Amino acid sequence: MNLNRVMTAEEVSMTGFDLTIVADILERVRTQRPRVHCLTNPVAQNLTANMLLAIGATPSMTEDAREVAAFVASANVLLVNLGQLNAGREAGIMAAVQAAQSHAIPWLLDPVMIDRSPMRAAFATQLLAFNPAMIRANAAEWGVLTSLPPQGEAVKNIIHAQSGAVDSVCAHGKTLYIQNGHEYMSRITAMGCAGTAVMAACCAVHKNAFEAAVAAFAILGIAGEIAAKNAHGVGTFVPAYLDALANLTPNALHTLGRIT
Amino acid sequence: MNLNRVMTAEEVSMTGFDLTIVADILERVRTQRPRVHCLTNPVAQNLTANMLLAIGATPSMTEDAREVAAFVASANVLLVNLGQLNAGREAGIMAAVQAAQSHAIPWLLDPVMIDRSPMRAAFATQLLAFNPAMIRANAAEWGVLTSLPPQGEAVKNIIHAQSGAVDSVCAHGKTLYIQNGHEYMSRITAMGCAGTAVMAACCAVHKNAFEAAVAAFAILGIAGEIAAKNAHGVGTFVPAYLDALANLTPNALHTLGRIT
Amino acid sequence: MNLNRVMTAEEVSMTGFDLTIVADILERVRTQRPRVHCLTNPVAQNLTANMLLAIGATPSMTEDAREVAAFVASANVLLVNLGQLNAGREAGIMAAVQAAQSHAIPWLLDPVMIDRSPMRAAFATQLLAFNPAMIRANAAEWGVLTSLPPQGEAVKNIIHAQSGAVDSVCAHGKTLYIQNGHEYMSRITAMGCAGTAVMAACCAVHKNAFEAAVAAFAILGIAGEIAAKNAHGVGTFVPAYLDALANLTPNALHTLGRIT
Repeated sequence: MNLNRVMTAEEVSMTGFDLTIVADILERVRTQRPRVHCLTNPVAQNLTANMLLAIGATPSMTEDAREVAAFVASANVLLVNLGQLNAGREAGIMAAVQAAQSHAIPWLLDPVMIDRSPMRAAFATQLLAFNPAMIRANAAEWGVLTSLPPQGEAVKNIIHAQSGAVDSVCAHGKTLYIQNGHEYMSRITAMGCAGTAVMAACCAVHKNAFEAAVAAFAILGIAGEIAAKNAHGVGTFVPAYLDALANLTPNALHTLGRIT
Repeated sequence: MNLNRVMTAEEVSMTGFDLTIVADILERVRTQRPRVHCLTNPVAQNLTANMLLAIGATPSMTEDAREVAAFVASANVLLVNLGQLNAGREAGIMAAVQAAQSHAIPWLLDPVMIDRSPMRAAFATQLLAFNPAMIRANAAEWGVLTSLPPQGEAVKNIIHAQSGAVDSVCAHGKTLYIQNGHEYMSRITAMGCAGTAVMAACCAVHKNAFEAAVAAFAILGIAGEIAAKNAHGVGTFVPAYLDALANLTPNALHTLGRIT
Repeated sequence: MNLNRVMTAEEVSMTGFDLTIVADILERVRTQRPRVHCLTNPVAQNLTANMLLAIGATPSMTEDAREVAAFVASANVLLVNLGQLNAGREAGIMAAVQAAQSHAIPWLLDPVMIDRSPMRAAFATQLLAFNPAMIRANAAEWGVLTSLPPQGEAVKNIIHAQSGAVDSVCAHGKTLYIQNGHEYMSRITAMGCAGTAVMAACCAVHKNAFEAAVAAFAILGIAGEIAAKNAHGVGTFVPAYLDALANLTPNALHTLGRIT
């Protein structure tokens, strides 16, 4: 989120990423209104639903193993977040990823704090067999995933989205960096979890998941920069952030985007 | 929510509904502070509690089958919402509606997405035997309820509150339309679910549930119109909406109410 | 929260409480960023996490009995809130307080509505054997705790924090009163629950739990007074309150603190 490093037109051409793609993806979310089914932790659920609605997507959140498959089958993408995992959500997630696989619906994994919970790490191992399209993880979580036998090696080729001082998307040795955002975003609960849901919405409307992840980070970060100007602190930042997501213009994306 | 269609005094007299009733009901909620026990989905719980507090009611939300009956017995009204249903809440709801029936406490049903979940539809069938005072449902959900054997026919006489471009309350062939509201209300998660809780609060202080439902839609919609003027988008709309509910005046209800 | 009663310097010296301690405690929360593990009701979870982040602490909220002990073991303090209690959280709480005791981590009890639920009262009795450092309870809840055989007498010596028109902290016959706050704080769901988490954060950085509780009430109340000036009602009060907590200055604490 260092705003000093501005990408040049030459750099854009070299990385093969154009800010027009970001605006295109956002426009498609708004017009197609993809259904994003989210199995996520209770702290994140409300913000996740509101951020999805703000960008134009359609959230659903049911998690009971008896009915979740039907909801996933009619969704365009699935988000699985392991925060505050419990037996009920665990069963729901298993039913959901099976439904996603059998209906060829892409799904994203956010393995929250698997580095601190052997229970979650073991569950994540099981989930990897169902081929997530993308994993959003910090360095410690990613370290656990890539060291898990026997999937570790295969995991390394899955698209890895990571937020931090600078956000990054990496796969097959190629990495793009998104230098947008505001430090308030790290001081509000569930911002990261909800952001992965926005990433899922972008994946639902754009086949290249690598570009979708980059676009999502840009959308999330640029909205954060705009919102911070309208906020007086971390509290007023949240409503201002939802406003910014909903009111984001192609021009703002082009002017403020910092992808390298 | 088409604001062009303004009701005339003559129409009011014909429909038998007077905006004074809306102001009276709101005033009674504020002075009597009815206890509204809510069994609702986790995404909606926080907003539901805050909207109830904003209009002056007293929320409670516990759902464990071991203790919920005691909470319902001392409440003035019960709200049952089937969103994100799971086995634990299902058991709690069953205990709650039984307690409501044995203590003659009115209860409202919001059968969220029963059109997409056979599990919820089957559960809703069981619940209908406990005589809800009112059902808040969209057209698809209502369609499922009224086609359920053997209750279908009986259901048709229950008060049916439905939100949409124009909100409506219908029973025994009579329908009133409430043309208040703002499109932001459909772009915030759980606004409908929380609105049904406000409807429950109105039922708690006014015996005529038909009028209570109409009054609730008017209160909710008018607050939305006021809030939209103080908001810069869907995010700042939420706190502005809670402000508007809490600060709503009889004059605003009289001036802005559109009931036909 | 009667602001008319201003404490004098002489009163401060007599009560042995100096507003410098409040500023010191807040500063230590901000620099040490204590990990506060919270087992609390779903309605309160999001606000609790955001209030902890706003004052500079680090929240965690997982509650599954299979993993909660590991989270508690690496935390600096534990909060146990009995609101919306269910079997899953009950098992998690029991594992958590056992972990807290074996790792000498202080924990606070907020026995929400045990006066209305025999199930919760029975569970609270079991929890008292694990020696909470402090209990936040209203008069009715405290009455139940102190009448429970055989712990009743022992409970009377535990620090008792109570919010109300005037907040108070009491132990071993000594009571301090904190006359800060704003009436909006009682009209927003979970403000009390989340406030106990802030109290826990203060306990994590200051050994004298009595002073930590007094400091927490002062911090919470003063932030409320500042926020009310920036709000137009109960809705805009919430984001303004998080701003105020995050932006609170030692000068504001000294100027506005009313501890007697």
